[in-house]
Amino acid sequence: MKRFDGRETSELRPIKITRGYTRIPEGSVLIEVGMTRVICTATVEEKVPLFKKGSGVGWVTAEYSMLPRATQTRNQREASKGKLTGRTMEIQRLIGRALRSVVDLKKLGERTIWLDCDVIQADGGTRTASITGAYVALVDAVNYLLTKGLLKENPIIDSLAAVSVGKVGGVALLDLAYEEDSKAEVDMNVVLTGQGKFVEIQGTAEDIPFDREELNKFLELAEKGIHELIREQKAALQVL
Amino acid sequence: MKRFDGRETSELRPIKITRGYTRIPEGSVLIEVGMTRVICTATVEEKVPLFKKGSGVGWVTAEYSMLPRATQTRNQREASKGKLTGRTMEIQRLIGRALRSVVDLKKLGERTIWLDCDVIQADGGTRTASITGAYVALVDAVNYLLTKGLLKENPIIDSLAAVSVGKVGGVALLDLAYEEDSKAEVDMNVVLTGQGKFVEIQGTAEDIPFDREELNKFLELAEKGIHELIREQKAALQVL
Amino acid sequence: MKRFDGRETSELRPIKITRGYTRIPEGSVLIEVGMTRVICTATVEEKVPLFKKGSGVGWVTAEYSMLPRATQTRNQREASKGKLTGRTMEIQRLIGRALRSVVDLKKLGERTIWLDCDVIQADGGTRTASITGAYVALVDAVNYLLTKGLLKENPIIDSLAAVSVGKVGGVALLDLAYEEDSKAEVDMNVVLTGQGKFVEIQGTAEDIPFDREELNKFLELAEKGIHELIREQKAALQVL
Amino acid sequence: MKRFDGRETSELRPIKITRGYTRIPEGSVLIEVGMTRVICTATVEEKVPLFKKGSGVGWVTAEYSMLPRATQTRNQREASKGKLTGRTMEIQRLIGRALRSVVDLKKLGERTIWLDCDVIQADGGTRTASITGAYVALVDAVNYLLTKGLLKENPIIDSLAAVSVGKVGGVALLDLAYEEDSKAEVDMNVVLTGQGKFVEIQGTAEDIPFDREELNKFLELAEKGIHELIREQKAALQVL
Amino acid sequence: MKRFDGRETSELRPIKITRGYTRIPEGSVLIEVGMTRVICTATVEEKVPLFKKGSGVGWVTAEYSMLPRATQTRNQREASKGKLTGRTMEIQRLIGRALRSVVDLKKLGERTIWLDCDVIQADGGTRTASITGAYVALVDAVNYLLTKGLLKENPIIDSLAAVSVGKVGGVALLDLAYEEDSKAEVDMNVVLTGQGKFVEIQGTAEDIPFDREELNKFLELAEKGIHELIREQKAALQVL
Amino acid sequence: MKRFDGRETSELRPIKITRGYTRIPEGSVLIEVGMTRVICTATVEEKVPLFKKGSGVGWVTAEYSMLPRATQTRNQREASKGKLTGRTMEIQRLIGRALRSVVDLKKLGERTIWLDCDVIQADGGTRTASITGAYVALVDAVNYLLTKGLLKENPIIDSLAAVSVGKVGGVALLDLAYEEDSKAEVDMNVVLTGQGKFVEIQGTAEDIPFDREELNKFLELAEKGIHELIREQKAALQVL
Repeated sequence: MKRFDGRETSELRPIKITRGYTRIPEGSVLIEVGMTRVICTATVEEKVPLFKKGSGVGWVTAEYSMLPRATQTRNQREASKGKLTGRTMEIQRLIGRALRSVVDLKKLGERTIWLDCDVIQADGGTRTASITGAYVALVDAVNYLLTKGLLKENPIIDSLAAVSVGKVGGVALLDLAYEEDSKAEVDMNVVLTGQGKFVEIQGTAEDIPFDREELNKFLELAEKGIHELIREQKAALQVL
Repeated sequence: MKRFDGRETSELRPIKITRGYTRIPEGSVLIEVGMTRVICTATVEEKVPLFKKGSGVGWVTAEYSMLPRATQTRNQREASKGKLTGRTMEIQRLIGRALRSVVDLKKLGERTIWLDCDVIQADGGTRTASITGAYVALVDAVNYLLTKGLLKENPIIDSLAAVSVGKVGGVALLDLAYEEDSKAEVDMNVVLTGQGKFVEIQGTAEDIPFDREELNKFLELAEKGIHELIREQKAALQVL
Repeated sequence: MKRFDGRETSELRPIKITRGYTRIPEGSVLIEVGMTRVICTATVEEKVPLFKKGSGVGWVTAEYSMLPRATQTRNQREASKGKLTGRTMEIQRLIGRALRSVVDLKKLGERTIWLDCDVIQADGGTRTASITGAYVALVDAVNYLLTKGLLKENPIIDSLAAVSVGKVGGVALLDLAYEEDSKAEVDMNVVLTGQGKFVEIQGTAEDIPFDREELNKFLELAEKGIHELIREQKAALQVL
Repeated sequence: MKRFDGRETSELRPIKITRGYTRIPEGSVLIEVGMTRVICTATVEEKVPLFKKGSGVGWVTAEYSMLPRATQTRNQREASKGKLTGRTMEIQRLIGRALRSVVDLKKLGERTIWLDCDVIQADGGTRTASITGAYVALVDAVNYLLTKGLLKENPIIDSLAAVSVGKVGGVALLDLAYEEDSKAEVDMNVVLTGQGKFVEIQGTAEDIPFDREELNKFLELAEKGIHELIREQKAALQVL
Repeated sequence: MKRFDGRETSELRPIKITRGYTRIPEGSVLIEVGMTRVICTATVEEKVPLFKKGSGVGWVTAEYSMLPRATQTRNQREASKGKLTGRTMEIQRLIGRALRSVVDLKKLGERTIWLDCDVIQADGGTRTASITGAYVALVDAVNYLLTKGLLKENPIIDSLAAVSVGKVGGVALLDLAYEEDSKAEVDMNVVLTGQGKFVEIQGTAEDIPFDREELNKFLELAEKGIHELIREQKAALQVL
Repeated sequence: MKRFDGRETSELRPIKITRGYTRIPEGSVLIEVGMTRVICTATVEEKVPLFKKGSGVGWVTAEYSMLPRATQTRNQREASKGKLTGRTMEIQRLIGRALRSVVDLKKLGERTIWLDCDVIQADGGTRTASITGAYVALVDAVNYLLTKGLLKENPIIDSLAAVSVGKVGGVALLDLAYEEDSKAEVDMNVVLTGQGKFVEIQGTAEDIPFDREELNKFLELAEKGIHELIREQKAALQVL
């Protein structure tokens, strides 16, 4: 069986990771996963949120947004509405949590790394692309701190990437495009470390609940996809 | 090994489900899971949100809140802050999604069932207690509609309950109390149907990523717990 | 003449005051006045608002809220609307002001007692029930401070309770239920101390203005009712 | 005994009511009560709020605001803060309620009269000055509707004015200036009709609760003051 | 050619500047430009915004608002909407910027002068009237500081006034009234110093773009008008 | 004299206009002016704002935003703050007004074209780059409507571009980079049509007011720059 775009069930969309996409931030990455494109920037700020002040420990946090016309119909800006949607909050909490899991915050020292993920084109999988791209921006920001002598030791513990899996028409698929996502029976986002361990798993049965066997199938697809994504991250990090 | 409160690793806290807790709503349930107490009410509204208008299809949605002093230190009310926190948004989206998965929205007809989950005492597991209690309130609201002749056919497809599992000090535990939750290495919420199928799985490694084997252990505990919770729901629904 | 629920014109609804309703707060009271039920909790916070900082003087303040389905039709949460209604603001200012009038804020020392009044079922008189219940929660919080040795001297000067009176169909009535309140020609809330002195009087002619003679009749009813309420508070405070 | 400004205990401050203060509104009144100055405008809008739509019945509502430097120290604008304070909400609810009590809303027909009370200089008694001034603006707006033939019959039932009374240094005083208000032991606002009946009574013991006898003294002062205010309103309404 | 109100094309509306309009602020001016009336008050605050703290340098800032019924139809208060409109923000930024241009902020010392411009009647040119009036209020506030010995040296560098010009029916006009402004093809606001230099120029072609020659015509009109306005300011400042 | 980046006083920075930058919108342009980069998208929406409904006339409006790290230090997102800054409002009002001036809204018919200008890198002149880029996106959206047969006639009347000019160190300069803008004595934005007519002129003396002669010098520079920008727009529009 072929998918609508010619992919195999266990095939990722083409990935492209561009470092140094804008010139100002400590880390700036454009990640493209098929038609999905996200600008991920990392900013170093020499202070921490109130609840960490004086602890000597650092913080990593994320914000996520979409340009109004990243999607087929224009969405009202959250800045105009005056508040973030639940979806945005959920996604930016997920991205921040995932990236903190591979950083030794004590080694980072009392500073914050902000990861801004701005979707300029959305075709499914924007949250997982954000995590995968933000990881690369984070590495660049840490390299900046190491080069400047502001950090003595690398606080990054492991590599990290994320991918979506799902069930469409009864078939388990890796890396859903919007076309597939919008009619998926199950939608699952998985975040794994370079060592193949789980950092986050979020699975939702949209219509038809799934069983343990199906879950195992989803996780195998995710492991395969993330293995490839981490290879792409490594390749991108060797350039430059 | 015994837990801090004397439970076995695979033991739920004591459950108490009180129907008809307040007299006005179509469904009103007080669920107690150990020290955690949530008032779950179901309200029938004879209209649907804009995006469902004219579709003939119904809607089920949830709102979640905590009394300011449900916890050890008083939290500022979200109404005073002027906005919902990300945590609240995430939880109420989860509750709504979970309950919609066991309702045939076409059979429900063009009406909304609101599920309000108000935590009056919080000791861990408030979101899973909310789902388990809201299910009972939902059944009562549907029975109200059936009795009144407003529904011809029961739109509820399956039973549903939720539980947390986690890893604390390297040991997999069922149904974490706050004492345990606050130091868990892994925190996972699982929502299953009466037939033991997955509706939602959300697992987060707070510090140490987990592997497939551990995941399987967590899921077994969850299945055991939810089996018992659904038995409690059924017992409660037979009374009255 | 009998009222719709069989009461005499000068008869209170049945009162029930349950202390220690939830286990965490310094004071936690469920007050039931007929069908009206309010959870009143008192929280001690070891700081004061900015405008009292460094004064050595304490503060007592209140917040009031209703569960969405405390009433016949569901109300949108103020947290979802993003702001408090005028009604809520007015009520919580009244509760705070009333309770401050029986506390010697200098003796309280530089700390705040928060009184949270959460209405779980509303059948008229929620603001007066809140004051009457919050007084008991306040006493419990002060006892907690005395027992812990954090206070040397009791800062509570007098007892305090509140009741509504009104005119319905030309007849002066004590303690209006919603059924009566919704068609009252005059609606008045009275807060008295244990010594029968006025702390607050708020009377509104909804349709037909009233004269001095009627006002005197209302005040007599209020005095009678509050006398009984204070007896109930004392009885509740002796238990436990 | 003389007061700080030479008045007797039962003496009002000088009153000045200027009609047609600005030229555009249907009613526009500048009321001066001593140093307190409020612009009261009445606007006729040919529609009603949602909850009155289709009822054939009209509505009267009020808004209240202070210029930032109406007071000794500059207050931040509520428009900049993004929300109304509880004080403002309470006051504008009071003004609207008071004025509705002298209007036959059925005779007004399905239209709204907005009363905007903008305090340009504040020296105590701004809410009672607002009510007294807004009544005159309301009469002018109703006259406009009668003249235009939009109303056949005058919907105003009675005249209406408001005054503050209080206790300062143990002495009952009429019409408190800020100097007195800021140290009052009791603060009471009274709204009476031309026939001397109560529309609203709001009394608060700031420090020392008061008894029935004192209440009677306050009400006598209020009756005297309002009698004079209504005479001033009538005089102003005869001019022009 | 005569205008709708009998003026020549290069004729200002009648100006009236009343100092000491309210008694409390350090500067309080009522400016009337034809039917347009604005209360401009200046408040001295002995602190500066965060971004100036510790700099030894002062700040001048402005806020602008309209009473709801300053215009033909009532506008909703921005305080009720919970946010400022873009128009208000733009105007208050303009007023602040213009007045800062004639103040030596170093000489002012680390304090803020707030200029509040509240439009009580609007008939075109409210922003330029605000600037012209606020200048006078500012001078009064500075005089207050000099008299009190809080300033040694006058920080005001030059005088300042503003006027609108525009093109209506192909004719360049000075000082547009609302009647003209609402159908203008070009609308331009000009702020000049007493020495005739530009502080601000903001011109917009509403429908038909304009050329250099027309621009020159507009600027000549503006220069003439501002010359007269500054004469009026000086006259007003000599009184009192 | 050379500028900090080697340019002549009357020299633009290098311009690059990329059409079809993202694939979904009706018009999508990346404009680069030196280091400044803005994504300008045009979205066609088949409805108009309320105030135009039923008029048969269309609308063109703009929104403007910066990515948080478009600048040297990270700015908090306006969506997180919950409101737009005055600067953003002012800029988006300017962009919308400028583009409406070259569209015959009657010919556009009752539909809206949204122009979203999202700055991904900011180095001065973001508002003028937005206008210049948005014009190209607008042309593409109109071409889309013409091609689809949704428009019979081209509603675009003229071409349009914008540029900044200013005075730095006493010298008039064209197209200020951030380095120059931050220390400019005069800052002016000019919007001209293809026929060299003024649509908008906004000049501000930051410190030192300027005279007519200087103004003329600024306008000559602006005319020269806009002439070149319009040539770049035309070149870009011929490609594709």
